[in-house]
Amino acid sequence: MATILAGFEGLVMPGDELWGYTGEAARLLKEAGAEVGDRIRITKPDGTVYEGILMPRYALAQKPIIVVKLDNGYNIGVRVERGTRIEVVEKRRAKVGAVVTVPLLEESPPAGPKPRVYILGTGGTIASKVEYETGAVKPAMSAEELLEAVPEIGFIADIDAGVLFSILSENMTPSHWERIVDEVAKLIQEGYDGIVVAHGTDTMSYTAAALSFAFHRGLPVPVALVGAQRSSDRPSSDAAFNLHAAVLTAAKAPFAEVVVVMHGETGDTYALAHRGTKVRKMHTSRRDAFQSINALPLAKIWPQEGRIELLVKEYRERGREKLVVENGFDDRVALIKYYPGMKPEIIEFLVEQGYRGIVLEGTGLGHVGEWLVDSIKKAVDAGVVVVMTSQCLFGRVNMNVYASGRKLLAAGVIPGSDMLPEVAFVKLSWVLKRARDPEEAKRLMLENLAGEINPRHTVNLYPKWPHEP
Amino acid sequence: MATILAGFEGLVMPGDELWGYTGEAARLLKEAGAEVGDRIRITKPDGTVYEGILMPRYALAQKPIIVVKLDNGYNIGVRVERGTRIEVVEKRRAKVGAVVTVPLLEESPPAGPKPRVYILGTGGTIASKVEYETGAVKPAMSAEELLEAVPEIGFIADIDAGVLFSILSENMTPSHWERIVDEVAKLIQEGYDGIVVAHGTDTMSYTAAALSFAFHRGLPVPVALVGAQRSSDRPSSDAAFNLHAAVLTAAKAPFAEVVVVMHGETGDTYALAHRGTKVRKMHTSRRDAFQSINALPLAKIWPQEGRIELLVKEYRERGREKLVVENGFDDRVALIKYYPGMKPEIIEFLVEQGYRGIVLEGTGLGHVGEWLVDSIKKAVDAGVVVVMTSQCLFGRVNMNVYASGRKLLAAGVIPGSDMLPEVAFVKLSWVLKRARDPEEAKRLMLENLAGEINPRHTVNLYPKWPHEP
Repeated sequence: MATILAGFEGLVMPGDELWGYTGEAARLLKEAGAEVGDRIRITKPDGTVYEGILMPRYALAQKPIIVVKLDNGYNIGVRVERGTRIEVVEKRRAKVGAVVTVPLLEESPPAGPKPRVYILGTGGTIASKVEYETGAVKPAMSAEELLEAVPEIGFIADIDAGVLFSILSENMTPSHWERIVDEVAKLIQEGYDGIVVAHGTDTMSYTAAALSFAFHRGLPVPVALVGAQRSSDRPSSDAAFNLHAAVLTAAKAPFAEVVVVMHGETGDTYALAHRGTKVRKMHTSRRDAFQSINALPLAKIWPQEGRIELLVKEYRERGREKLVVENGFDDRVALIKYYPGMKPEIIEFLVEQGYRGIVLEGTGLGHVGEWLVDSIKKAVDAGVVVVMTSQCLFGRVNMNVYASGRKLLAAGVIPGSDMLPEVAFVKLSWVLKRARDPEEAKRLMLENLAGEINPRHTVNLYPKWPHEP
Repeated sequence: MATILAGFEGLVMPGDELWGYTGEAARLLKEAGAEVGDRIRITKPDGTVYEGILMPRYALAQKPIIVVKLDNGYNIGVRVERGTRIEVVEKRRAKVGAVVTVPLLEESPPAGPKPRVYILGTGGTIASKVEYETGAVKPAMSAEELLEAVPEIGFIADIDAGVLFSILSENMTPSHWERIVDEVAKLIQEGYDGIVVAHGTDTMSYTAAALSFAFHRGLPVPVALVGAQRSSDRPSSDAAFNLHAAVLTAAKAPFAEVVVVMHGETGDTYALAHRGTKVRKMHTSRRDAFQSINALPLAKIWPQEGRIELLVKEYRERGREKLVVENGFDDRVALIKYYPGMKPEIIEFLVEQGYRGIVLEGTGLGHVGEWLVDSIKKAVDAGVVVVMTSQCLFGRVNMNVYASGRKLLAAGVIPGSDMLPEVAFVKLSWVLKRARDPEEAKRLMLENLAGEINPRHTVNLYPKWPHEP
């Protein structure tokens, strides 16, 4: 049975384990009768003594390290070795621990300075709590509280944190993307070695695409978007694991790209770093909801082993590029999914309303009903940029195969190659802020700017679907 | 190297094999120097002689059967056994074979009458040809021509065929669904044991859902929709394999449901029979593009072994129900995909235009930006039925978890459970033709009518995504 301790949201505490401790660490703590929140004293074989509040770890951390919060407010990880003794000095009383606003220390700090990582909060489930009046989940925890909940991240990097804003990601708009781009750019200029953006999962892939285009001309460090599918007050929360993996990515990854870092499997084994232009939320609730479409993820991230396993050969190297920011997204762009019988009036309405771009999510290789071609041609003639993508999601638009596609090409529709509809939407919104005319917009839409087009699909990019009972 | 023989579109003829023949059959034909279209004589060890035109088989048919067209116009499959001799009587001249409009015979007909299957053509790639003037592919082949291209289906059933209309499926509308429902109903009343509907793949899953709802109260036989991802004039066409599998399903499946029968893998191993309300085209071009989402397929279909392997325990049994047809689809329904920054004006426009239903494809568990709630509430108050689905596709809408969802529920939005957005769109279009008021429409949308809601998701329903280079 799993239990949650107030003040330690975001942590899984299975009954079989001891608040995330396993093996020798768990055995020693059990022997001592120590509970999370107790004041304990650890005596190492060489006589060194650490005294402080016992902190939890998230599920199944494998290193034999016990984390205690010292009186000076620092968390410290003490390695358990043969002969280490633990005593309970004082049983816990009420809520334990205050917000940690200082970097965490390792027992033995590594040689040289640690990378500096900034965790930027924007809201979402990775930072949410139950609203007790209504029973619903609302964004609440600050980025600093996350730092307390996951002591492991302090061993990887010097952490700073701040909240830009706190909204559920379904409420994000292009103007929020602009604010995030500005803030991330500022932090990179301040010299951080990597940026983590805590973000709600609902529209995380849209924001990841927005950042990808804004920084496509020059990015010196990784920008890792991270969230949680289960809110951090629930025992099954993936918040801690994902944050750990995202910090590791921001601090140590060899690539300087905008990525989404989320669970790769349901278990706490590895996370995946997905390229920001090729990722999609594919499940409403699973931990491994985020998946790369038409591309491999950039890397597997094994947070508990501190390991980053690259899955691709081509990426933008850390430290190679100087920062170039091209911010700005046009909000007069619509994403329109085609369905049988869809009427031209919807296209006509968008043109009348002054929309400058339309991304169509057509069927198959990039088709819509032939009765729409006239209204689409009128839109193009009126200067609206129209891009075709496919509701299949997998594969590539090819409008030369069937008569329907050829008519649309003739009407001036731009084929979106293998771009996800959502990514083409973000890209067009970005492109329309900088192209001087529809011709330049077309050229930019056809060009692979930020890895949004994968020119080469291998057969192994398609998932293995469940065909067995 | 693969070659195509004019007049035998739809057949794969790899150079290593002999027009789809393998093993002993291929060896004997090669020894005799026989080519497809030649007049050959087969002498069996017992002295029986078959003389006729050598017909091709599609790729890698495994039974040692050689198909010849006899002078009376029948195709016959002759089993090759030790001691069988083959001679070429006359080399082929021009185009071989006329349209076969009579049932095919087995060498030894099975005891009792064969099932009667009707192949209803509606257009699409399974029946398309290159338009030589433009190089594009256009629908062309009649259902009868398909019968000639795939002699195997004559061994399974007595085949009748006809063309209802011939359109690319991106041009299907709700009124086409109504015509297909009427025609299928008529054929079932005429006593066919199964119906195959040849259909373009672009909107096949929409039509499958439409038929599912129209027949949900009573269907005595299987209705199998089938198409091809590669047009039947291409060497890699999947038309023949899929048609073979669909005819086997229509003739022999123990279930009486509306299903989509398409390749299960890229190779010619098995096809899948997907429930018509749970299937989606997930790839623009792969043969195994069609996959069940949030449900297992009903069955694997192994056409070359004549085997149907059930994957689920619950299905509607063949012959159990009497036919009940509830036809009619309202075309004043829109499917609207949410994207960051989407403006309320689109919802307001639909209401003004007299739309009666809107299916929203929201984010995550079923959300949209909070600034849309007012316009959605106004739509509901004006009598428009609004249903929420998720652009994640996998998983289930749950609007009780976050404040955003609860506001939408309060505004009167109907949660779509695990219905695919496209299926909810078709269902709402069907529901609005029969519900007397929005309350009844809501009740019907929440009810599982045709397997469109799967109340129980098991973990193995999520695909295995590619995470390895």
